[in-house]
Amino acid sequence: MTPLEFRLSSRAKAFKASEIRELLKLIGHRSMISFAGGIPDPALFPVALFQHAWRHVFGGPSIAREALQYSTTEGYLPLRQWLAAHMNTLGVPATPDNILITSGSQQGLDLIGKLLLDPESGVVTASPTYLGALQSFSAYEPCFSSLDAPQLTGPAAPRLVYLVPDFANPDGRTMSKTARHQALDQAKALNAVIVEDAAYSALRYDGEDIPAIASLDARLAGSIESTRTLYCGTFSKTLSPGMRIGWVCGPTALIRKLTLLKQGADLHTATTNQMVMHHVAAACYDAQVARTRVVYKARRDAMLAALARYAPPGLKWTKPEGGMFIWLELPDHIDADLLLPQALRQDIAFVPGAAFHADGSGRNTMRLSFSLCDEAQIEVGIFKLCSLIAKAATARDDVLTFAST
Amino acid sequence: MTPLEFRLSSRAKAFKASEIRELLKLIGHRSMISFAGGIPDPALFPVALFQHAWRHVFGGPSIAREALQYSTTEGYLPLRQWLAAHMNTLGVPATPDNILITSGSQQGLDLIGKLLLDPESGVVTASPTYLGALQSFSAYEPCFSSLDAPQLTGPAAPRLVYLVPDFANPDGRTMSKTARHQALDQAKALNAVIVEDAAYSALRYDGEDIPAIASLDARLAGSIESTRTLYCGTFSKTLSPGMRIGWVCGPTALIRKLTLLKQGADLHTATTNQMVMHHVAAACYDAQVARTRVVYKARRDAMLAALARYAPPGLKWTKPEGGMFIWLELPDHIDADLLLPQALRQDIAFVPGAAFHADGSGRNTMRLSFSLCDEAQIEVGIFKLCSLIAKAATARDDVLTFAST
Repeated sequence: MTPLEFRLSSRAKAFKASEIRELLKLIGHRSMISFAGGIPDPALFPVALFQHAWRHVFGGPSIAREALQYSTTEGYLPLRQWLAAHMNTLGVPATPDNILITSGSQQGLDLIGKLLLDPESGVVTASPTYLGALQSFSAYEPCFSSLDAPQLTGPAAPRLVYLVPDFANPDGRTMSKTARHQALDQAKALNAVIVEDAAYSALRYDGEDIPAIASLDARLAGSIESTRTLYCGTFSKTLSPGMRIGWVCGPTALIRKLTLLKQGADLHTATTNQMVMHHVAAACYDAQVARTRVVYKARRDAMLAALARYAPPGLKWTKPEGGMFIWLELPDHIDADLLLPQALRQDIAFVPGAAFHADGSGRNTMRLSFSLCDEAQIEVGIFKLCSLIAKAATARDDVLTFAST
Repeated sequence: MTPLEFRLSSRAKAFKASEIRELLKLIGHRSMISFAGGIPDPALFPVALFQHAWRHVFGGPSIAREALQYSTTEGYLPLRQWLAAHMNTLGVPATPDNILITSGSQQGLDLIGKLLLDPESGVVTASPTYLGALQSFSAYEPCFSSLDAPQLTGPAAPRLVYLVPDFANPDGRTMSKTARHQALDQAKALNAVIVEDAAYSALRYDGEDIPAIASLDARLAGSIESTRTLYCGTFSKTLSPGMRIGWVCGPTALIRKLTLLKQGADLHTATTNQMVMHHVAAACYDAQVARTRVVYKARRDAMLAALARYAPPGLKWTKPEGGMFIWLELPDHIDADLLLPQALRQDIAFVPGAAFHADGSGRNTMRLSFSLCDEAQIEVGIFKLCSLIAKAATARDDVLTFAST
């Protein structure tokens, strides 16, 4: 029964399971007020429209056989056409040649890492940033540096600047138009590619839309073909994550290279899913986004109100204009990793913030998601969580003993 | 409109589009007798069962919401249970912990490359071998060597031995039980992992089943946990390729590492597809395999008979016991790349063999697939192809001028 020892790649040796993720997985099936997962409320999925779309795609033997057969790596043309039109509504002058369909936007990140990164290549991210992006890029063994203090020269000079400009995972922050222009200028100076992760961009609850970086880039460059932005989109936060349909939009030359890399990675994204998603998106995308915004706005408001009501002194939090996340900064001496088991015993889940920092900092931070709980649960959950934080803030010794429980 | 120049990874610089693939793509929609693609006949897809499965998975709001939601990276448990039982029928004592669901077996190959290969790590393959495996592994910049003459020492000492033991793509050959044992011994001596690509294994038309390498390995090791074989399976050749469902079966320690790498690559395989495929496989896998064998056996027989009837002197071909492919060796001086445009003008397609050789040899070879054409088309197609080859064999100058047409 002893596993053999093999020579693994250096990337694989560095990968290890996140203890937090494992902990949260174990408790996933208990009755729990979960602020942990950044996942959409399944009650919002447009089930009837998906049913209708499956009936359509399996409506006759000829279309059903097309849905069950191999298809092209770049993706189903009607879906790419729909997405090109969608990108145009965002100010990005795309044609279907500028679109690659991916198996979720996570695959977009992986393929972009594969395209651009050699060992020790530079990657610039915000800090904190999306854990899954750190994971994807890490497979190509780059050097991470922070947006505020990028390493600018040498072999680690950045090739890739990763940004989540709208309602970022994990901190809910939105980049101003000025900050987007500055990021573009910085990327130009470095001759780096910008990866614009737009996972949450459709979910704005207040304030004015700010143009996508891809759109600012195209406006300045005069053509999408001379841009440096790879826009990663997804249907996971609006229509369905379980269908695994995302896309990358960018200059044709890079899209073609990404297509070749995708061919080696999984040949193509499931044909059926692309046909069904095209049907559903064409039928309801705007209405679905509008409906989702109403529900999540109320939950965000409930969480902000509960925090204002129950937060102990010294607790700070972000006030996102959209998305799914509020970011908490606890008093310096509290370690959110150690607070988690305590919270789980009271049936409250969250994600400690250290995992979102490439440099391991942020131990006194946590991410709360408001997408999955209704207002009453949010009220109860925030009350309990704030009580725990208050207790930890006033009783250092208690907190430190969490480690052994 | 000028694309910008970016610093790409060294792997991406080396990747280029296959001219042959591009050529075949262009003619895909014309009326054509195609022996080119290694793709299943869509007329064989169990469409009614897929329709039934979709109705089941979208039969109520609760199950539909599960199908549309995120799920675990390792895959849908009932499907992993079904696959573990399936692996046991093949003599591989697997539990669900030994199974990772992948987005087609192509993704299995990519993740295994990611797990094992650093730049210049050794990979041993047959020659010729599956083009897609060469593509997947190439992304990790290994050194390829041939099964007959592996490089045994130094940094390029093989970490991975890639085998397609049954009815191989592209040459249709099957490894004997002795050859499988020898490959295991060789892998043991090298402390390498064996990747057993079983894409075609279910499609046997004559002769006795030969045990999977994974099964021989487990029998000798006494437990799957002490094996060195990663078995890559797929539903693409039996139930549907467009659903993109494959699996890797192997020791838990390696499956866990692959699961972490998959998380960064695409989070998980589409939930819906796993649920539907479980339903369809449980309902009809054995019957569907039996039905498919009858049809493809008749086509293989028709192609072998037509070759026997029409082949010019000097043409050699394999006689596969299963799968989808017959491999042709033309007289030495004929270049199959140059023959292809000539064949396409007569509405016949095939894949020239050079692409399947990591070292660029095999220019006088070609792969013919018999899975997509009926017997009458096969008769006509082989007649025309043999006439072309005969002409090329007797008129060298004519052949050489193909290059300029």
